[in-house]
Amino acid sequence: MSKNLINRRWVLADYPEAMPDETHFQFEASVPLPVLEEDQILVQAHFLSVDPYMRGRISPEAGYTAGVKPGGLLPAGGVGEVIESRSNLFDEGEFVESMNFGWQEYSVLSAGSTQKVDPALAPIQSSLSYLGMPGMTAYFGLFDVGAAKPGETVLISAASGAVGQVAGQLAKAHGCRAVAVASNEAKLDWCREIGYDIGINYRETEDLPKMINDCCPNGVDVYFDNTAGPIHDAVMQNLNLNARVAVCGVVSLADKIGKPDIGQRYLRQILVNRARIQGFLVFDFAERYDEARDYISGFVRDGTFKFKEDISDGIESMAKSFIDLLHSENFGKKLIKI
Amino acid sequence: MSKNLINRRWVLADYPEAMPDETHFQFEASVPLPVLEEDQILVQAHFLSVDPYMRGRISPEAGYTAGVKPGGLLPAGGVGEVIESRSNLFDEGEFVESMNFGWQEYSVLSAGSTQKVDPALAPIQSSLSYLGMPGMTAYFGLFDVGAAKPGETVLISAASGAVGQVAGQLAKAHGCRAVAVASNEAKLDWCREIGYDIGINYRETEDLPKMINDCCPNGVDVYFDNTAGPIHDAVMQNLNLNARVAVCGVVSLADKIGKPDIGQRYLRQILVNRARIQGFLVFDFAERYDEARDYISGFVRDGTFKFKEDISDGIESMAKSFIDLLHSENFGKKLIKI
Repeated sequence: MSKNLINRRWVLADYPEAMPDETHFQFEASVPLPVLEEDQILVQAHFLSVDPYMRGRISPEAGYTAGVKPGGLLPAGGVGEVIESRSNLFDEGEFVESMNFGWQEYSVLSAGSTQKVDPALAPIQSSLSYLGMPGMTAYFGLFDVGAAKPGETVLISAASGAVGQVAGQLAKAHGCRAVAVASNEAKLDWCREIGYDIGINYRETEDLPKMINDCCPNGVDVYFDNTAGPIHDAVMQNLNLNARVAVCGVVSLADKIGKPDIGQRYLRQILVNRARIQGFLVFDFAERYDEARDYISGFVRDGTFKFKEDISDGIESMAKSFIDLLHSENFGKKLIKI
Repeated sequence: MSKNLINRRWVLADYPEAMPDETHFQFEASVPLPVLEEDQILVQAHFLSVDPYMRGRISPEAGYTAGVKPGGLLPAGGVGEVIESRSNLFDEGEFVESMNFGWQEYSVLSAGSTQKVDPALAPIQSSLSYLGMPGMTAYFGLFDVGAAKPGETVLISAASGAVGQVAGQLAKAHGCRAVAVASNEAKLDWCREIGYDIGINYRETEDLPKMINDCCPNGVDVYFDNTAGPIHDAVMQNLNLNARVAVCGVVSLADKIGKPDIGQRYLRQILVNRARIQGFLVFDFAERYDEARDYISGFVRDGTFKFKEDISDGIESMAKSFIDLLHSENFGKKLIKI
């Protein structure tokens, strides 16, 4: 490596049995960078993305992508600047985005799985949020999997999160009634500010099924499920006929990876309401990302779109930020500024 | 009533707390028939249909149709002969089919919800099975809700039942691999005879998830779920990517109506496999019954279609037949010959 850079990064110390804590992550302060191979680029991260899906990766259980083994680099998307290139697709000084940054300051990326980011169009970190994976997730979850129609009631858990903020605004723009569920009043204030019709603080609500019933008198038509757990349970008791549940994330099961999730099941409710529960991964819609990005960009250009980021500084903060995210301690899209 | 007929029927004695037994049903041996009103017909039942959905009706819990109250006539579809008509649509001596016969020998039906049956086309009781609701259920559950495609593995619970027999044969004709799950070897022998590729006796299998894994090495693409319960649980651990679960019936929850069904939940599996769980009722497809009936009639004309009925004699046998059905004691489509 011509520049003799030293990398700092996080690797997995050990698989968490339940919720991860800082002992499960190992900081490495002096890691040499490999020499670039043909079609690779060296990128200095400017922002790394902290996402709930990472929990699923740090498990010996087979998931939808290969897991990380102890000693392995933890996975993260990011956006940053090319500082060395052995690809004719990328020049030094360009900004790029990829799912493969990892929890580190410098990343060697293959050109084929890296996208350019134009810093003149939007803040570069929007490629990690509303113009990136969370935005695409909101769009396809709401319109394809959820099949939301104007006039319907759309309930969104983790409503002020990276996906929830976009989904709520898309639902409102589509003529739906948008109901936010979040973990504190500040988040719900923000949800109302960005257009949600009503907000439910699930941590302060004694009888969540009844509260959802009160807030959704005709039942829930579309449940954008970012959490599983108690919110899911409460919604399943309040389905409207032909309801759709878009299963986007299961962060409330973060302490149960590889263990059974025991509780009430709702097959009779699914049958009686002709409901549809569907899991989805945004990657399955990769061929249609442009459609979603164009749609969301339209809102951004309108000036009506709002988005809150929750930014921590420095690669050192990555582990704590991830743990906080699993406890809903973030407020808005969680990013690490490098 | 000109004919001074005396009706015999079953009414609900009391809501069952768990599984119904004979004490929950009251036989009435001498019930006068009402006078026909305009657009009504009096029909003498020849066959009554015994179906698992009836369990959902004998509950104070709201279901997809109004429940029966204690003292009320129990619901059943049937086929029979018009013996008096005040409708210009029906003549005495014609055969008709309706969902509204009830557990009784004579029924007063409204012309609007009654369909003619041509006894020259097929045995009249086929309008209660493969050319009636169970056949339609199999067709729409397999092709619409399950979206079965040639080459896929389709697993069907209650595989030798009224719906399962049709679904299995349709799946095979469509080029799918059909896997039967049933409660004894005689039923599985029949399943193999009508074309299922392989059969699983869930009562004699110690490790059902492993057995399903062995029988479905690529996972289950379509699960035609007639039962919920332990078979559902075992299948959910063996989903292929993009699997579809058509929730058609929940007979294994017959002892839990109005009570929570506690057990393992599969949201993470649904997410990771991008699976779809969808409840459906055949009535929602009413506009397309002709399509389904034509399709199934084609098989019947081919001479390749096979169907087993399990017939008991006399209205007196209705309660025991229904209870037996809930315990999987029937073998084939359960009918009462009046």
